[in-house]
Amino acid sequence: MASDEQAIRTLMATWHSASAAGDVDAVLALMSEDVVFLVAGQPPMRGRDAFAAGMRGLLAQHRLVSNGTIEEIEVTGDWAYCWCYLTVEIQPIAGGNPVARVGNTLSILHKRNGAWLLVRDANMLAPTPAGS
Amino acid sequence: MASDEQAIRTLMATWHSASAAGDVDAVLALMSEDVVFLVAGQPPMRGRDAFAAGMRGLLAQHRLVSNGTIEEIEVTGDWAYCWCYLTVEIQPIAGGNPVARVGNTLSILHKRNGAWLLVRDANMLAPTPAGS
Repeated sequence: MASDEQAIRTLMATWHSASAAGDVDAVLALMSEDVVFLVAGQPPMRGRDAFAAGMRGLLAQHRLVSNGTIEEIEVTGDWAYCWCYLTVEIQPIAGGNPVARVGNTLSILHKRNGAWLLVRDANMLAPTPAGS
Repeated sequence: MASDEQAIRTLMATWHSASAAGDVDAVLALMSEDVVFLVAGQPPMRGRDAFAAGMRGLLAQHRLVSNGTIEEIEVTGDWAYCWCYLTVEIQPIAGGNPVARVGNTLSILHKRNGAWLLVRDANMLAPTPAGS
């Protein structure tokens, strides 16, 4: 279990570093093909391809700077959940005010062929005033 | 697994019916003492007692009418997650416009002493215009 928890911590750290580097393929490698992302006010985003299209669109004009605190990881066999508190800043490459969002996420992870992958993600980040 | 899934479906149905009946104790019986509720824009609500205080406060002046569709249940041993799409209407007892919220939830459930209990809940419900 300890190594599984460490693997999930590494996955989360890789997510942040790859996002900051604009390395979409590295982020996509952390999720299953059938991943589902849930956020308030929008229909579920279903599948890795939909995520990829959204992230590539965002990165065309923005940088993503994120970091997070892992509040809890619970592993049971090949399944786990992870509760994080995240800060994400979306910075326009052309300049201008960044948009910051902060809040909690609750993610479901599944170990497939020995590798942990994100399969469900509940995102409760909310906007914060720029610069706050 | 089939009976576990059915038990979780029953739990969710009981949650809605007990909420509508204003039966706080029946709702509290569906969650663990150390439950955590996550929503956007607010700190985590930790513990059954905190939930109880919030629900009793709300029910002092409102009726709760909720229903939901279970999108997915995944059970693994004594753990499960459940993704729902919910509609919640908060109706002032004194009259006036209800507030409606709709959206997805992602819940973690744990079987303790043979009974499934809600232990973590990610709530992504968003307001909708009244009457829409």
